[in-house]
Amino acid sequence: MSERKSTLGFVKTSKANLGRLKLEGGEEISSLEIAYETYGTLSDAKDNAILICHALSGDAHAAGIHEVTNKIGWWDEYIGPSKPFDTNKYFIISSNVVGGCMGSTGPLTLNPKTQKPYKSDFPFVSITDMVNAQKKLIEYLGIEILFCVAGGSMGGMQALQWSVSYPNNLVKCIVLASSSEHSAQQIAFNEVGRQAIIKDPNWNNGLYDDNLPRIGLSLARMFAHITYLSDESMREKFGRNPPRGSIGQNTEFAVGSYLLYQGDNFVDRFDANSYIYVTKALDHFSLGRGKELSRNLSSVKAEYLVIAFSSDWLYPPYQSREIVKSLEVNMVPVTYCEINFSKGHDSFLIYNQEQAHLIHHFLESSYNK
Amino acid sequence: MSERKSTLGFVKTSKANLGRLKLEGGEEISSLEIAYETYGTLSDAKDNAILICHALSGDAHAAGIHEVTNKIGWWDEYIGPSKPFDTNKYFIISSNVVGGCMGSTGPLTLNPKTQKPYKSDFPFVSITDMVNAQKKLIEYLGIEILFCVAGGSMGGMQALQWSVSYPNNLVKCIVLASSSEHSAQQIAFNEVGRQAIIKDPNWNNGLYDDNLPRIGLSLARMFAHITYLSDESMREKFGRNPPRGSIGQNTEFAVGSYLLYQGDNFVDRFDANSYIYVTKALDHFSLGRGKELSRNLSSVKAEYLVIAFSSDWLYPPYQSREIVKSLEVNMVPVTYCEINFSKGHDSFLIYNQEQAHLIHHFLESSYNK
Repeated sequence: MSERKSTLGFVKTSKANLGRLKLEGGEEISSLEIAYETYGTLSDAKDNAILICHALSGDAHAAGIHEVTNKIGWWDEYIGPSKPFDTNKYFIISSNVVGGCMGSTGPLTLNPKTQKPYKSDFPFVSITDMVNAQKKLIEYLGIEILFCVAGGSMGGMQALQWSVSYPNNLVKCIVLASSSEHSAQQIAFNEVGRQAIIKDPNWNNGLYDDNLPRIGLSLARMFAHITYLSDESMREKFGRNPPRGSIGQNTEFAVGSYLLYQGDNFVDRFDANSYIYVTKALDHFSLGRGKELSRNLSSVKAEYLVIAFSSDWLYPPYQSREIVKSLEVNMVPVTYCEINFSKGHDSFLIYNQEQAHLIHHFLESSYNK
Repeated sequence: MSERKSTLGFVKTSKANLGRLKLEGGEEISSLEIAYETYGTLSDAKDNAILICHALSGDAHAAGIHEVTNKIGWWDEYIGPSKPFDTNKYFIISSNVVGGCMGSTGPLTLNPKTQKPYKSDFPFVSITDMVNAQKKLIEYLGIEILFCVAGGSMGGMQALQWSVSYPNNLVKCIVLASSSEHSAQQIAFNEVGRQAIIKDPNWNNGLYDDNLPRIGLSLARMFAHITYLSDESMREKFGRNPPRGSIGQNTEFAVGSYLLYQGDNFVDRFDANSYIYVTKALDHFSLGRGKELSRNLSSVKAEYLVIAFSSDWLYPPYQSREIVKSLEVNMVPVTYCEINFSKGHDSFLIYNQEQAHLIHHFLESSYNK
């Protein structure tokens, strides 16, 4: 991976000890740790900080080359010097969500009461809890007001929730390929994924040992992965081709061997309990729709950029338009764009000039006010 | 179920012994049995027969009340006296596909060589093989020329293949919610379903005993079932509601308990090997697209009715339009309609007046010529 390049160079993931986190559901985490990375420099006025929120399977490593793994960050094309999230101007913070498995407190963390990993004894966490944990991180970094909170998919839900929970603590809000609540269809996709995991013979009510529920988690991922792509992008990439090389275990089609690879790969990097917790956070997130959504957005103060993608059938553009309408009802300034881009839900993760320009100008226009 | 009503009254499923079936792949079935039902009366001229082809999980019981199970047929609203497939005028034949598990020769059948069920030793069957088996059934019933072959989804593929394989043996062809070949996305959906089955601990390379691969097959069905519905129909039916009653095992949403029920129910009536065989037949079916499809349709002689549904994202309308275009290139008479109906891919199975009218008039107009 040494040939990988990033204008940010090498970066490292840090951990912040943030003390007690009272959860929305009433329980509490006594000693919250959040994994995070930062890029760029915080201004003396502390007015140039941007928080990046990741999606379901993301992590704190959003940009640069990781000093340990040598891996490039998941949004490196958008974050760096002269990139849309310009590290010459902004101080970018990216953190891993509470409940996740990429360094932050979650099911893999030792439960202080038992000195064993929480596993499925970890309390339910909501999108609001994720946001509250991020708020503690921001305070820990000495920042009171974020210039912007931005994210796609689940990250977009966090950005939205930030603007509702802390209306006085952010100036701008970027919501990409997201929704104010999951539809029955979106819940259904997650439900089947969760069922694949909990029906795995190794699941053991989430108290699995080293014998991981690999089959279930890989099936959940294979299935979910289809929903991240589009009909068109799969046609371009795989068509009806047979598998290439020796990777094609038990499959007669290239698309099948690709999905098998994605499933196996995912099990090596993601925890099954975290998958259950984080997908439940997604499904239970609800700012409502229509009048309910308008009421829930009535006290926001940020300025918004909302982007949807024409080929995204997992978070269809109508869900973004519902957010936009409810903001407009409240006379909140909002820029909306539906981008014609063929990569399905994953479009927001992939470099496309239109999204890059929109983010760049949205940040600049206000910063120069 | 005794309160169930059908204008056709009670019906029974018969079995026809059809001898040898040479398969497209080179192997042969020495003693083919096909389960079938008929409704209405064959005319003296034997010119009023219509063959109905079922979809992936369908069976021969398309209409009436089954004399043993008391169940109503899957297309009873379309088949019967004065219904679109009018049994006062037409002689309707509905048969179960070869490779299936609803009475026709398939993986559950005794292999004459071993006197044990074939299971996964059953040879690969294609859509063309299904059609060839149906051709034998038609001959067995003393019919040379079908007035019409009709089907939706996989049934539509069979209808299309009928018109290609036996251009002189059918007058009309009805293709509903179908495709001339599966896209990468459609293959991907089936691939994940097959992976769920073959990764089930009870799978045993398809040689499972009474311990069925229940988990895998139920997951495959849950997942597939989402693709049969639409975003809108799921919203109307389930919304974000919690499960009702005691059915909600391990799920916090009504849509989840519904899918669990569908999965469990499916395992009780469908064989996992058949699921593998029939989905592979679907994925390998390919009349091509564009010029290739036009070439493959250049010798057809039937008159076509092609219907797609606006909310069908599994077999999107563009796939029907490709069939229509290739027929038009060949100057073949074709009526096409994209019906606005919210029930997703399942729309063709559900009574909707527009589809009913189109089928009725398509059959009548020609019959009265």
